[in-house]
Amino acid sequence: MTDPGAGPAISSPRHPLVLEASRLRRSRARRESGRTLVEGPILVAAAATGGCRFDRIFGLASDVVGREVADEVGCPFVVVDAAALAKVATTQHPQSPVAVVTIPEESITPGKRALVAWGVGDPGNCGTLIRTAAAFGYDYFAGPGAAETWSPKVLRAAAGAHFHTGIGRAATLEQLGAGRVLVAAVARGGTPPGPLPGNAAILVGSEPHGLDAEVVAACGVAVTIPMAEGSESLNAAVAGAIVAFLGASGPGANLTPS
Amino acid sequence: MTDPGAGPAISSPRHPLVLEASRLRRSRARRESGRTLVEGPILVAAAATGGCRFDRIFGLASDVVGREVADEVGCPFVVVDAAALAKVATTQHPQSPVAVVTIPEESITPGKRALVAWGVGDPGNCGTLIRTAAAFGYDYFAGPGAAETWSPKVLRAAAGAHFHTGIGRAATLEQLGAGRVLVAAVARGGTPPGPLPGNAAILVGSEPHGLDAEVVAACGVAVTIPMAEGSESLNAAVAGAIVAFLGASGPGANLTPS
Repeated sequence: MTDPGAGPAISSPRHPLVLEASRLRRSRARRESGRTLVEGPILVAAAATGGCRFDRIFGLASDVVGREVADEVGCPFVVVDAAALAKVATTQHPQSPVAVVTIPEESITPGKRALVAWGVGDPGNCGTLIRTAAAFGYDYFAGPGAAETWSPKVLRAAAGAHFHTGIGRAATLEQLGAGRVLVAAVARGGTPPGPLPGNAAILVGSEPHGLDAEVVAACGVAVTIPMAEGSESLNAAVAGAIVAFLGASGPGANLTPS
Repeated sequence: MTDPGAGPAISSPRHPLVLEASRLRRSRARRESGRTLVEGPILVAAAATGGCRFDRIFGLASDVVGREVADEVGCPFVVVDAAALAKVATTQHPQSPVAVVTIPEESITPGKRALVAWGVGDPGNCGTLIRTAAAFGYDYFAGPGAAETWSPKVLRAAAGAHFHTGIGRAATLEQLGAGRVLVAAVARGGTPPGPLPGNAAILVGSEPHGLDAEVVAACGVAVTIPMAEGSESLNAAVAGAIVAFLGASGPGANLTPS
């Protein structure tokens, strides 16, 4: 069976389409073009379900998911060999397919619960916070110093949650604060975590520094997770998840046991 | 001021001491020698506080922490230049110092609460589970398929928690079960998380597969974290942390607000 849309496989990492896509591995190229790379069948399928705009999908000739998604969203499926795939891939062990997509517009619901990465520079932690936000019905904000939301590393850590979570950016507390109660997650001195108002925005700080004192002071509430004696640190994404889970518990939470 | 213990800096990545240590970047060499590499001032200091046995510490001439810890534990401080440091370092951006330490014996407290990585192969998740175990007063078990507990990646993700947490290995449920209630963290079908008996062992499965059905069946309790509609996944370390935190809440928990 021939595939009229596929054409002969690109076997050169220097093919213009491959080179153009591979530039998106750099942050600056993503910012300038408004596009990013989405790698692997799970993320590519999630991007399609989430209504992403696809430029094209690169994939090995054997790639079924890549071809199906390309059909579904109506973009070209570009057959590549392993060397050309590696050139557009964002991991050491490239996973076919790799898609070039337009970074979606911000999609925040005013006054909705939000989880905020405030100075969290680690892409794994930011991705995990996005995944947690999606799981517990929060929007996600990248505050100052947060990892680049649509970078391939953050996309991977969020495991597809980018495509069904409200995502925005906030450079100042004022941008978060409109219609929201600000809640600082702090390592010491706060009250234990528990149910939060339905318009809470939970700020999670960097490791090991945490939130600046003036940021904490500007928040209406400060929450501290109790720990065993002698312990003093939790992973930032873990701390955010515990506060977010308990914050969304109680009446009107809309969390459903599976 | 001269430092009689330091000697001239090693500037060759092929120096025998450097080559010997650099072998420990491989899993097999760690297993055969019973030693591992501990990198960066925070982890090296934590290893010293935790009573680790040090063979030697490699560090740049300017490294104050490395020299101090070497003095304190009574091991040689080997001055290296950047190239030799890179050869023993386990990260892309080497952090002085790098220590060669003996992997400590297992140190499980019978019947104590435990957090168990059961098939969790991701080093970041296993390290975060160790950190969480330490924070909430649990011992940690590496079950079958768990990432190698004393690998540099797991050490980094645990941020020093290896050195003040009980750590063991369990190849079978029986090895965990002695004196413990087994609790399976599952994506669906369990009861919501809450306080657990003081001898609970919480099993966290891999992503996206989760725990095998027969493992869940063998556990006395299954717990599911409620999620927003349409969501279906949490990071494994996040799920384990929420179940562990709530499990250690309530009477007799010994978690103290900071």
